[in-house]
Amino acid sequence: MKYRVRCIPCVINVRFKELINAVQDDDLASKIGLNIVKKAYELFSKFDELTHIATLLFRYTIEQAPSIIDYYRRVKEESIRRLLKMQHKCLRLLEGLEGYNRFKMAIKIAIAGNALDMGVAEYEPKDIDLREVLEKDLRIDHSMELYSMVSKGNKKIIYLLDNAGEAVFDAILINELETLGNKVIAVAKEEPGFQNDATLNDAIMAGIDKYATEVITTGTSASSIHLDEVSKHFLEKLKESDIIIAKGMAHFEYVSEIELGKPTYFLLIPKCDVIASMLNVEKHVYVLYKKTHQ
Amino acid sequence: MKYRVRCIPCVINVRFKELINAVQDDDLASKIGLNIVKKAYELFSKFDELTHIATLLFRYTIEQAPSIIDYYRRVKEESIRRLLKMQHKCLRLLEGLEGYNRFKMAIKIAIAGNALDMGVAEYEPKDIDLREVLEKDLRIDHSMELYSMVSKGNKKIIYLLDNAGEAVFDAILINELETLGNKVIAVAKEEPGFQNDATLNDAIMAGIDKYATEVITTGTSASSIHLDEVSKHFLEKLKESDIIIAKGMAHFEYVSEIELGKPTYFLLIPKCDVIASMLNVEKHVYVLYKKTHQ
Repeated sequence: MKYRVRCIPCVINVRFKELINAVQDDDLASKIGLNIVKKAYELFSKFDELTHIATLLFRYTIEQAPSIIDYYRRVKEESIRRLLKMQHKCLRLLEGLEGYNRFKMAIKIAIAGNALDMGVAEYEPKDIDLREVLEKDLRIDHSMELYSMVSKGNKKIIYLLDNAGEAVFDAILINELETLGNKVIAVAKEEPGFQNDATLNDAIMAGIDKYATEVITTGTSASSIHLDEVSKHFLEKLKESDIIIAKGMAHFEYVSEIELGKPTYFLLIPKCDVIASMLNVEKHVYVLYKKTHQ
Repeated sequence: MKYRVRCIPCVINVRFKELINAVQDDDLASKIGLNIVKKAYELFSKFDELTHIATLLFRYTIEQAPSIIDYYRRVKEESIRRLLKMQHKCLRLLEGLEGYNRFKMAIKIAIAGNALDMGVAEYEPKDIDLREVLEKDLRIDHSMELYSMVSKGNKKIIYLLDNAGEAVFDAILINELETLGNKVIAVAKEEPGFQNDATLNDAIMAGIDKYATEVITTGTSASSIHLDEVSKHFLEKLKESDIIIAKGMAHFEYVSEIELGKPTYFLLIPKCDVIASMLNVEKHVYVLYKKTHQ
C-alpha cells in the first residue's frame, strides 16, 4: 500500500528500537541511527509502497548493525519457548466444540496470536490473552464463508505466517484445517527473516511441521510475498493453491493490493491508525477479512 | 546536553505529531515530513547539543507548516483555560500549612504542572493530579536548601517557565516566593514560542503577572535560554539575580551544563529514559535538583 504520513516515523521508530536493543554503545548506535534516518529519507522519497520500503530499510539496518539478527533470534526463541508452554491452554478452549463453533474458536486463537507484533512503533507486543479469546468476537467476520469452503475438505491452502511466537497458535488453526481434510502449506520467511517474523527454523521450532502438509519459505526475507522477489517454488505453490490465509498487517498491506486470482482471507489485529482506518474498524480488534481477487 | 541515540527518533516523532495535528492533507504532510527527516539528519550530523538541534528543527518545521503555530496556540489557550478552573483546588492544598510545609506543597504543585509536556515522544501530556500531589514525595529533594534561601526574603529570583498550561501552577509557587519577600522575574519565550511552551501572552493569560514582580521573555523562541540567542535585557536580569528556578526537561538539558555562577534549582518530572538516567531516578517522579554553578 502507499504509505501515509504516520508510516514514516513508525518505520523509523521500529528501526531505532531494534538498534537500541542490539547495539549497547550509544555513540555507535547514534552514528548508525543517523545513517538509518538518511536512508529512510531516500527510500520514502523514492518509493511509494510501504512494505517494500520497510523491507529495504530493515535490510540496510541489519547490514549496519548485524547484531540485530541475533537480537531477534533470541527474542523469537524465547517467545516460542514461552508460548509453547501455554499452547495446551488454548487447545482446551476447543474442547467440546464442534463444526463451525470449533473452527471459529481456532480462528480467534490464531488472530489473538497476532498480538505478538514487534513491528509497530506505537504498539507493545503482548502474549495471547485467553479470556480475551473467549470474550472477544470478530469485528470483521468472514469466517462462515471460509468455513463453508474448508469444511468440504480437499482444498490446498497457502498459510502465510507472521510473527515467530504467533506460529504456536497458527499451529492450532492449521491442525483444524488439516483435520477437515485440507492440505495446508505454511509459508515462513527466508533467513535472516524480517523483524521477529517466523523463518523456517522458527516455524519448525513452533511445531508447524507437525500439523501442516508442508512448511516452505517465500524464498526471500521481505516483509511479505513480494512477487518480484519470491522463489519460483513458492510461486508454483501459490498458483496451485485454492485459498490463501494471510496473517498480520504486512501481508494485509501488500497482498490486499495485488491480484492473486483466488480468495484471500486476512487474519489480523490492526495495531495502528492507518490500518484500522483502512479496514474501517478500531485498533486492537480481531479481524477476519476476505478479499476476492477477480 | 549531548544527544543520545534515543533522542533522535524522539525529536523526529514530536515534529511528526505536531505536523499530523496541523496539516490534514496526507500527501502534503508526507512531503513536509520527509523534508523534516532530511533536516533532522543534517542537524543531528552537524551539532551535538540536543536543545539546540530541537530548536532548529522546530523552527524549520513551522517554516514548512506555519499552521503548527496556530495548532499550538489553540492547544495552549484551551489548556490554560481548563487549568485556571482547577487552580483554586490546588490553592486549597496550601490551606492550614505554614512555613516549610506550605512552601514544599507549592513546590510539589509547580512540579506536578510539568506533567503537561507535549515535547516527549513516548509521553502523553496529563493534567495535574491532586491526589498525586498530596501523596507523592520528591524523589530528589533539595527543597529545604531552597527554602532556607528564599525564606529570608530579599532575593531576586529568575523563574524560567516551561509549558503554557503549567504556568497556572507556577503562579502558585511564584505567589509563595513573593509573599516571602522575594522578587520573582518570570521568564517566558518570545513568539512564536517553542512547542507548547509559554510565551508572554500565555504567561499573562495564566495570570503570572498578578503574582510575579515582572514577566519578561528570553528574547528568543529557543527551547531554553541559549546564551548566544537571548536578549541583552534578559541577560541583565539574569546577571542581577540571586537564584534561578528552572522548570522542565529542556531547561535542565541546557542550563545544567552552562556556568551561570549562581544556585540553580531544577523542578521537573523526567519523562524519558535519557533524563531519568542522567538524574539517576525512575521516570515520572517529582524532582527538585540543585546545581551550584561555581
